Amino acid sequence: MIGEFQQIYKYMAPLAEKAEGAFALRNDGGVFHHGEDEEIVVTTDTLIAGVHFFADDPPFELAQKILGVNLSDLAAMGATPRYYTLNTSYPGNITEDWIAAFARGLQTMQDRYGITLLGGDTTRTHGPACFSLSAFGSITKGQALPRLGAEQGDLIFVSGTVGDGALGLLAKQGKLQDETGFLQQRYHIPQPRCALGVALCGLATACLDISDGLICDLGHFNIGADIHLSMLPLSEATRNAVTQDSLLWHSVLNGGDDYELLFCIKEDKVAELLERSQKTGTSVTQIGRITGTHKIRILDQNGHEYQETGSGYRHF
Amino acid sequence: MIGEFQQIYKYMAPLAEKAEGAFALRNDGGVFHHGEDEEIVVTTDTLIAGVHFFADDPPFELAQKILGVNLSDLAAMGATPRYYTLNTSYPGNITEDWIAAFARGLQTMQDRYGITLLGGDTTRTHGPACFSLSAFGSITKGQALPRLGAEQGDLIFVSGTVGDGALGLLAKQGKLQDETGFLQQRYHIPQPRCALGVALCGLATACLDISDGLICDLGHFNIGADIHLSMLPLSEATRNAVTQDSLLWHSVLNGGDDYELLFCIKEDKVAELLERSQKTGTSVTQIGRITGTHKIRILDQNGHEYQETGSGYRHF
Repeated sequence: MIGEFQQIYKYMAPLAEKAEGAFALRNDGGVFHHGEDEEIVVTTDTLIAGVHFFADDPPFELAQKILGVNLSDLAAMGATPRYYTLNTSYPGNITEDWIAAFARGLQTMQDRYGITLLGGDTTRTHGPACFSLSAFGSITKGQALPRLGAEQGDLIFVSGTVGDGALGLLAKQGKLQDETGFLQQRYHIPQPRCALGVALCGLATACLDISDGLICDLGHFNIGADIHLSMLPLSEATRNAVTQDSLLWHSVLNGGDDYELLFCIKEDKVAELLERSQKTGTSVTQIGRITGTHKIRILDQNGHEYQETGSGYRHF
Repeated sequence: MIGEFQQIYKYMAPLAEKAEGAFALRNDGGVFHHGEDEEIVVTTDTLIAGVHFFADDPPFELAQKILGVNLSDLAAMGATPRYYTLNTSYPGNITEDWIAAFARGLQTMQDRYGITLLGGDTTRTHGPACFSLSAFGSITKGQALPRLGAEQGDLIFVSGTVGDGALGLLAKQGKLQDETGFLQQRYHIPQPRCALGVALCGLATACLDISDGLICDLGHFNIGADIHLSMLPLSEATRNAVTQDSLLWHSVLNGGDDYELLFCIKEDKVAELLERSQKTGTSVTQIGRITGTHKIRILDQNGHEYQETGSGYRHF
């Protein structure tokens, strides 16, 4: 069992090398600042073994997921990633190899998204492993993307593809074939849409990331919406799966872990959106429209309301 | 069992009322900014039932402790408290009354220290209750108090009294009398020295807060020190306890949970320190001096080295 201080200095401090204000993790806290016209966006998430991930998930992927879900929250606000703090609570049986692989996963995500460790806390738990990560991004003052800004008539878009995370979980549980491993990869390692999020500032009327499931998260716009099942962007693997078993639509609509951006724009902004989408190399697809009701309707190819409406995944 | 969203909107959102950038806790993240000449100090701590507190600790006091230990970290950096985020992981048997009392404890500490909830995360755990709190303070650029700045000859000071937290824990465990409840109160509810911390900016050469025990935390200055046992400021309750049982000195020196500031100044700055101490209404006491060695020595009244040297409380 590697000691607390050794663990910090050997595996965590290198992740904080680029942050002068991290003081090599030897201080009571970290320090950073933003530019004159900027403000700070803070997001935070806790992931617990047995609730949000499997205790035997590989640490390299798990680290990327923990950082990824918070980066996705930054993306949903339109913020540019800057720093993060990480609180780790390990059970007694954790090995040094595990921690080393976990640190490599963090480094991979840091390099990809330009975010740096600033501080944290390391504790032991007699319960399941538990990670709390807070991510800090910067944004031009007043430009943070809202959740509650969509109005009747706005078009609803989603980035990438939906449903892969949910089907990846089923595949991991052995309930679904996943020959290429694509779905499980999508479940394990979020691809936060940070560049798109930044590009949506000043354009999207509302934005959030899909973490609890499309239908559940749509509810957070707090306004009615019509979603067309046939317009949902699906990966080839997910398309094949729902074609073979239409009951899987339930998972596609209600499962979590997609970490795609779900956002609204005015109808006359489509051209601008597509231009920005192209510049950031992130596909976006219109999936429906904000309505005057307070109801979320999923419509099938014939315009009939799709019967299967769950309430997404809630932790309580 | 109260639901996740209900819990957030009923008990947490009122704590975030004063923070415009908290968006009533309905967004993916919170937003804040600092003044042109300022920067942000971030601290974070995780507290787990059975490790850092007792599962049956009263929630009103527990909330104050969780916020207090992070405020103490801000104090150690010299930062003015601004915002915090709180990640709560509750076991299934938590009641609404418990959460209500917990929220009242947070409100009490918010009012006392001028800090406001900005965001967080609420999850369920099948393990022990677990709380991760991150606190944000502001500080004049470049003025954050360092840990590693003390030099040979600097005087070592401590705020308030030491040892009460450790003896309070013993009292709580029934191993020590505590007729007035003073020691347990000190153990349960830290009194972070935020005003003093701010006042030490530009004056202290090194500063930290005593959370793991006086001797252990002294080691974080990474330089030798001579501490005089007879100079340690003790509360009446702790003084009585060590007088009756000198073995308790071990707890006073090595126990944690004091959350007093431990700091160094140049010898010619004593008058200025005392003036600032008086202005902030926080007592400070010289307890020793930084030496040219790398050894921490505890000296008794005769100048002999005190034999009892533990290594503080480590979580691993």
